[in-house]
Amino acid sequence: MKSICGVEGVTAAGVKEGKYGLTLIRAEGAAAGVFTSNIMKAPPVVLMQERIARGKLGAVIANSGCANAYTGDRGYRDAVKMAEIAAGELDLDANGIGVASTGVIGRYLDIPLITRQVKEVAPRLERSASAEIQAAKGIMTTDLFEKHALIQRETFSVGGITKGSGMIAPNMGTMLAFLYTDAEVSARDLQVSLKLAVKRTFNRVVVDGDESTNDIALCTSTGLRGHVNQQEFQKALEECCRSLAMQIAIDGEGATKLLEVTVTGAPSEESASAVAKTVIASPLVKTAVYGQDPNWGRVVAAAGRSGVRFDPYAVSLWISDGTSRAELVRSGEIVVDLVLAKSLMAGKKVIFELDLDAGDGTATAWGCDLTEKYVEINGRYTT
Amino acid sequence: MKSICGVEGVTAAGVKEGKYGLTLIRAEGAAAGVFTSNIMKAPPVVLMQERIARGKLGAVIANSGCANAYTGDRGYRDAVKMAEIAAGELDLDANGIGVASTGVIGRYLDIPLITRQVKEVAPRLERSASAEIQAAKGIMTTDLFEKHALIQRETFSVGGITKGSGMIAPNMGTMLAFLYTDAEVSARDLQVSLKLAVKRTFNRVVVDGDESTNDIALCTSTGLRGHVNQQEFQKALEECCRSLAMQIAIDGEGATKLLEVTVTGAPSEESASAVAKTVIASPLVKTAVYGQDPNWGRVVAAAGRSGVRFDPYAVSLWISDGTSRAELVRSGEIVVDLVLAKSLMAGKKVIFELDLDAGDGTATAWGCDLTEKYVEINGRYTT
Repeated sequence: MKSICGVEGVTAAGVKEGKYGLTLIRAEGAAAGVFTSNIMKAPPVVLMQERIARGKLGAVIANSGCANAYTGDRGYRDAVKMAEIAAGELDLDANGIGVASTGVIGRYLDIPLITRQVKEVAPRLERSASAEIQAAKGIMTTDLFEKHALIQRETFSVGGITKGSGMIAPNMGTMLAFLYTDAEVSARDLQVSLKLAVKRTFNRVVVDGDESTNDIALCTSTGLRGHVNQQEFQKALEECCRSLAMQIAIDGEGATKLLEVTVTGAPSEESASAVAKTVIASPLVKTAVYGQDPNWGRVVAAAGRSGVRFDPYAVSLWISDGTSRAELVRSGEIVVDLVLAKSLMAGKKVIFELDLDAGDGTATAWGCDLTEKYVEINGRYTT
Repeated sequence: MKSICGVEGVTAAGVKEGKYGLTLIRAEGAAAGVFTSNIMKAPPVVLMQERIARGKLGAVIANSGCANAYTGDRGYRDAVKMAEIAAGELDLDANGIGVASTGVIGRYLDIPLITRQVKEVAPRLERSASAEIQAAKGIMTTDLFEKHALIQRETFSVGGITKGSGMIAPNMGTMLAFLYTDAEVSARDLQVSLKLAVKRTFNRVVVDGDESTNDIALCTSTGLRGHVNQQEFQKALEECCRSLAMQIAIDGEGATKLLEVTVTGAPSEESASAVAKTVIASPLVKTAVYGQDPNWGRVVAAAGRSGVRFDPYAVSLWISDGTSRAELVRSGEIVVDLVLAKSLMAGKKVIFELDLDAGDGTATAWGCDLTEKYVEINGRYTT
C-alpha cells in the first residue's frame, strides 16, 4: 500500500468511465478541512464548510468530470443529494459524508450517473493496494498519473491521495486532497495541523496561477493506533502533503520538468513564500526552464516585483538538479558558468535557491515549466 | 505623420542593426515621467527618477538590445555616459537628456556601439513620417510592428511611440513610451496627467504578468501651441496612451488576438481594474481565447479570485467582437448560445464585458491570447 489504505481503518474504491469518475473512501473519525479562498465557491465547497464544523466524517464521496460549480441552489441541493446517495449505500449519517467535485464549471451533476456509480463502487470498498489506486484514479481530470503518499512512523501512519493539474494557484487549485491518519488526533488539533501543512505545501504549488472554485483538502483521523506526539504528527502530515504537492507540480498541465524554488534570507517565512511563489509563477521563468535557459535575470526580476523589500545587489542565486549545484549570482555579482548551468537543466527537476540576505525567513515553492502542450490542452478543454 | 512628429517642436531619428537599436528624439520643454515599481530598477530608471525632478527635458536617447539592468554602479555610470554622448552630439545640457534601455538583463552597455550609433543618427533628426517610424523601430525588441499614436485637437496635439511585447504586467512591463505634446502644460500638471493616463492605460495591459526592470514613460511638452484646457489635455493624453497600450497588447509575444475586458458595476474604479486585470492575466482565459472557446466559467472564476467582493450569482457577462455582442451569463444564470458565442471569437479582437452589479466602478484592461508561440519565443531568448 502506498497511500490511504496504509492507514488503519480506511477502505476505498473508485471507478473511472471516460471523463466521469467516482471515488468512495470510508473512514470514521475526527475530521478537519481547508477550502478554496476563491469567492466563487462551488456548492460542494459551501456545503463542506458548513459540515466540517461538526469535526467528524464517516466517509467521503468525490466525483470527477463535473465540478458542480456555478450551479447555485440546484447545485447545492445536488451536493446534498450526493451525500445522501453515499450515506444510503454505506448506511451512515448523511451529515457525516464529505462531498467534493472536480471538472467542468457551469454544468449540473448527472445524479442518475452518480447513483449508478455509487451502487457499483460501494460493494468494492476494501483496504488494498488496488483499492487506493482506483480511488486516486476516480478523482483525476487532466492528471496524467494518480498521486499517492504514505508516511509511516513507528506508532502511526499518515496517508493521502490528491489530484491537481490545471487551475493550480497559491491558494489551492482544482485540487482535491483526502488525507487520513490512524493517529488519534482531536478535530481541533487536526484543523490546526492541516491548515499549517496546507499553507506550507499545497498553497505553495503554482501551475498556472489560476485558482479554482472547488479546492478541498480533508483530513480524517481514525484514531485506531492511539495518541501520538502532536509535533511528530504535524511533521508527518506536512511530509505527506509535501509529497502530494510535488506530485501535483510535476503533473502540471503540459509540464516536462518539476520546478522548485527555495528562498532563504528573507525578512520572514511569509515574505520568503511570497518571493518563492512569484518566481515559480512567472511565465518568463517557466518558459526559460522549459527551454533549459539558465536565465537568472528573470528569476531576480520576478523576485523584485514580489512586493518584498530587499537589496537586489545583495542576493545570491544557485541552480541545481538535486544532485549538483552551480552558482549564478554571488552577492549581486553575476558569476554564472552558462555551460555548466545549462547542463543542470537537462533533467526532470530544476531547483533555484535564492538567498535575499535580508533575514532568516525560508520557504520552498513548487511548480513546473510552461510548454506548448499547456496551451494546447487549455485551448481545447470544454469542447 | 502618425505619432511624435505630428507634435510641433519634435524631431526624431533612429537606427536598428540586428538586435541593437538606437533612437534619438529632440523636443525641449516641461517634462514628467512614470517608472516601474519593480524594486530591481535598472540604472537608467534610477537615473531618470532623479533627473525628472527637474521638470524638463531637452531630448531622449533610448537603446534596444541591452537593458543595462542589474549592472550596478557601472550600469549607472554607463547610463550617465549615454546621456553625455547624446548631449555632446546635440549640443544640449547632459542633465536634461532622458535615458532609457530595453533588452537583455545583466549585460553591460556597449558604449562604443552607442557612440557610433548616436553619431550616425543625430545628423538625421527631422520632423517627418519616416523619422518617427525610424524612432519607433529603434526601440523595438521582440515587437513585431512599431507603435504610433497621434491625437489631434483643434488647438494642440499629443503624440507618442512605445514598445512592449514581453514582461508586460499591470505595473508596466518592458515598456518604453515617449509622449509629446505641443500644448503648454507645466511640469507639475504634466506629472499628474501622465500618472493618471498611465494608470488607466499602460498599467492595464497584461501580456504575461511579468513586470520589467526598465519601464519608463516620459512626456514632454514643447508648449509651442500655447495654453489649453487641462481637462481636454488629460483626455487627449489618455486617448493617445490608450491607443499605444492596445497596440502593445495586440503585439504581445505570440499573440493572435487582442483581448479586452471591461468591468462595470464594481464597488470602485480600483476594484473594477483589479477584476479586469485578473481576468486578462488568467492563463486559462488566455488559452480559451486562443482556442476560441467561450469559456465563461474561467472568466467568472478568475474574477472570483481577484480579491474584490461581489455576489457571483448577480453577475452578467457578454462576449463581443467589437461589432456584435452575445450574452453568456445573465444575473448568475447561464444563457450562453455556444455556437453564436464561438463565432464572435473568430476575429482579431475578443471583448468580455462583466457587470458585477455591486457599484458604479468601471475599468477596461487589455491583453492577448496565450499561444504555443509565446512559449517558443521565451524558451529560447538568451541564446
